[in-house]
Amino acid sequence: MSLPIPDGYRPLTEDTVSDYLADLDCARDVLGGTPQAWNVREVGDGNLNLVFIAEGPTGGTIVKQALPYVRLVGESWPLPLSRAHFEHLALAEHNRLAPGLVPAIKHYDERMALIVMEYLTPHIIMRQGMIKAVEYPHFADHISTFMAQTLFFTSDLALTAADKKERIAAFCGNHALCKITEDLIFTDPYRIAELNNWTSPQLDDMAEAFRQDGDLKVAVSRLKLKFLTETQALLHGDLHTGSLMVTPQETKVIDPEFAFYGPMGFDIGAVLANLLINYFSQDGHATADDPRDTYHDWVLTSMEAVWRQFSNKFLDLWRQNGTGDAYPADLFSGAEGARQLEAERHAYMDRLLQDSIGFCAAKMIRRVLGLAHNIDLEWIEDADTRAACERRVLTLARSLMVDTQNYASIEAVSAMAWKIRDQ
Amino acid sequence: MSLPIPDGYRPLTEDTVSDYLADLDCARDVLGGTPQAWNVREVGDGNLNLVFIAEGPTGGTIVKQALPYVRLVGESWPLPLSRAHFEHLALAEHNRLAPGLVPAIKHYDERMALIVMEYLTPHIIMRQGMIKAVEYPHFADHISTFMAQTLFFTSDLALTAADKKERIAAFCGNHALCKITEDLIFTDPYRIAELNNWTSPQLDDMAEAFRQDGDLKVAVSRLKLKFLTETQALLHGDLHTGSLMVTPQETKVIDPEFAFYGPMGFDIGAVLANLLINYFSQDGHATADDPRDTYHDWVLTSMEAVWRQFSNKFLDLWRQNGTGDAYPADLFSGAEGARQLEAERHAYMDRLLQDSIGFCAAKMIRRVLGLAHNIDLEWIEDADTRAACERRVLTLARSLMVDTQNYASIEAVSAMAWKIRDQ
Repeated sequence: MSLPIPDGYRPLTEDTVSDYLADLDCARDVLGGTPQAWNVREVGDGNLNLVFIAEGPTGGTIVKQALPYVRLVGESWPLPLSRAHFEHLALAEHNRLAPGLVPAIKHYDERMALIVMEYLTPHIIMRQGMIKAVEYPHFADHISTFMAQTLFFTSDLALTAADKKERIAAFCGNHALCKITEDLIFTDPYRIAELNNWTSPQLDDMAEAFRQDGDLKVAVSRLKLKFLTETQALLHGDLHTGSLMVTPQETKVIDPEFAFYGPMGFDIGAVLANLLINYFSQDGHATADDPRDTYHDWVLTSMEAVWRQFSNKFLDLWRQNGTGDAYPADLFSGAEGARQLEAERHAYMDRLLQDSIGFCAAKMIRRVLGLAHNIDLEWIEDADTRAACERRVLTLARSLMVDTQNYASIEAVSAMAWKIRDQ
Repeated sequence: MSLPIPDGYRPLTEDTVSDYLADLDCARDVLGGTPQAWNVREVGDGNLNLVFIAEGPTGGTIVKQALPYVRLVGESWPLPLSRAHFEHLALAEHNRLAPGLVPAIKHYDERMALIVMEYLTPHIIMRQGMIKAVEYPHFADHISTFMAQTLFFTSDLALTAADKKERIAAFCGNHALCKITEDLIFTDPYRIAELNNWTSPQLDDMAEAFRQDGDLKVAVSRLKLKFLTETQALLHGDLHTGSLMVTPQETKVIDPEFAFYGPMGFDIGAVLANLLINYFSQDGHATADDPRDTYHDWVLTSMEAVWRQFSNKFLDLWRQNGTGDAYPADLFSGAEGARQLEAERHAYMDRLLQDSIGFCAAKMIRRVLGLAHNIDLEWIEDADTRAACERRVLTLARSLMVDTQNYASIEAVSAMAWKIRDQ
């Protein structure tokens, strides 16, 4: 099976990118000089797309192009080029709602399934920095702002129902990307599946136990149902630390090609999960010279700060901009109404934290038992050491998913992470 | 403000329907004779549209045409003609999923916003029959089949996510009709609104108390949020006893122009609410000669039967046809898996009952304090008697909405209805 390729689509190569960019004012202005002087490198380290950096005498730019299949696997796994359309749509929304926290769009070519965007330098993928125990003092502030702005302003708390339904419809076509999430996160790790892999034989017992664990499978199936049915807000859809480009001063959220209207907790849980995975991975990277004890603290503290700051910012946006069709203002007028609505806002955040903890757990488990793993853990060379870290990831994740209601605060999550690592 | 009228649209009249139908094989075949011999009556007693019955020597047919405004109010309340498109789309789905329980479609004219459909005779609007205390021995069976078939087969339990997302998108454009529900059911009865009306002064105290009731306003706002965000299945969207045409032998569900993908409990709750409203209205229709005691029993028993039969049928469909992307079969293989999934199916139905009870309450309250009332209550001429019945409707509804978790079974609902009537 292969997918129809639109007329005019051709995958670029390092040799053809300059010719393509030479026709674009936005590229010539940034790169400077003549196209002959431009240097192009293919740098896509993700699983799906081509990514080129073009650099000229005065600057650089990024060219991201979708392929009609999953790059990691090849033509045997077709994936529609339309994902570039949805990425562009989401990235434009993110630029509008969280300016400065995402790369600027220079050019979009629907036929070529290609986005020309701002070259972020000297930013690195956050996950790579965290593996080296680099602290990002502004990260919690930045990512909580990104999530609060993009989730709140695309929700029924801010939008009219008519406006929101049109936006939902605009993203419904991105179902091939959603399907990857549905299979790889909510299904495969809990059944025998060809693409699963884990540190074997060390974790064979736990992989088997998870596949037999009825409470866990019911819990993950409820989360999948939420993912399938709850159109709360426009999600990034893949908000892990590999989708973040950072410096100690800046944070940029990239790669929203999985965007769709779904449950907010999925994005929030993705961030929390990737911090927790890194937290447990640190023991695999620590050495006698570099025990990383303070970094452990920084990671957990940051995870708490992400939720707390997100929650505060989201609540403030709601108080200031709650003009959507949900919780209409004139149902809660007067001092008593204001008190009731404020109490309900906090109850809403409590429910959202529960959702986020559940999705966080699902994201942790898939990174240990499913197809795509995190380099936080993969780069631990000794398999026994790696498995010991991964076992802790799984232990916390199972508790978070099955006993979610026991975690009434983000501090309860970090306390349990601490306890599991301490055992 | 008025809406654009497409080229070729013109509202039909009793004088022009025959000419329109004369061009249609499907009409000529049913009506027989020549168009000169056809008799046309406009019979629309709903609030939105034109409805004609055309009868000829050998039979009759229905012509339903949307107007570019709300018929009840006039051109000052525009309403898009596209609702005929969504009604046709939903009616076609209903014919496929619940054949025999909806009118057959003979012809659809998108430009004229018009559906020619089966003439149901000698069926009457169920609400009119119930006001006269007519028992419908097959009603619970029929309506539970309609709901189980249409809700299950349009849910993630039966569909792939890709298929379902395309269907969601197909109905997102029906937001003007959803907005009527959002305003009239979930918002206006809980605030000062021009269109509200109630039996005054008898119910002034209760209308005021509801507008001040923080717990109630939070509860109805949570229900509204569900209505805005949860795309569980294709809803009829207006499933009250005025949308049912019945004989003692047959039940036909009409008028799905409010159709969209929403929370299943909204349709189920609509049916339960209309039975409960009728139950409390009977004391206003009873006389010494016609005490209606057995009819009270029939109504409550039918309400219990609707849920029980729906629940059983939905569960059976899930067991037999659970091929959708939610709760994938190979996560629950083997005897232990089957046991776990069966337990989760029952937990799912418990959650759905909670949703249904909440929406049921919202539907009850809007029919007493909002714009559109039920003739079950309106036709009680004595205002004090009517208010006494309506007060019981509101008392039960408030309890159902605020203390939903106290109603773990449908029998708990009918027991409380009984108790409130008995006080």
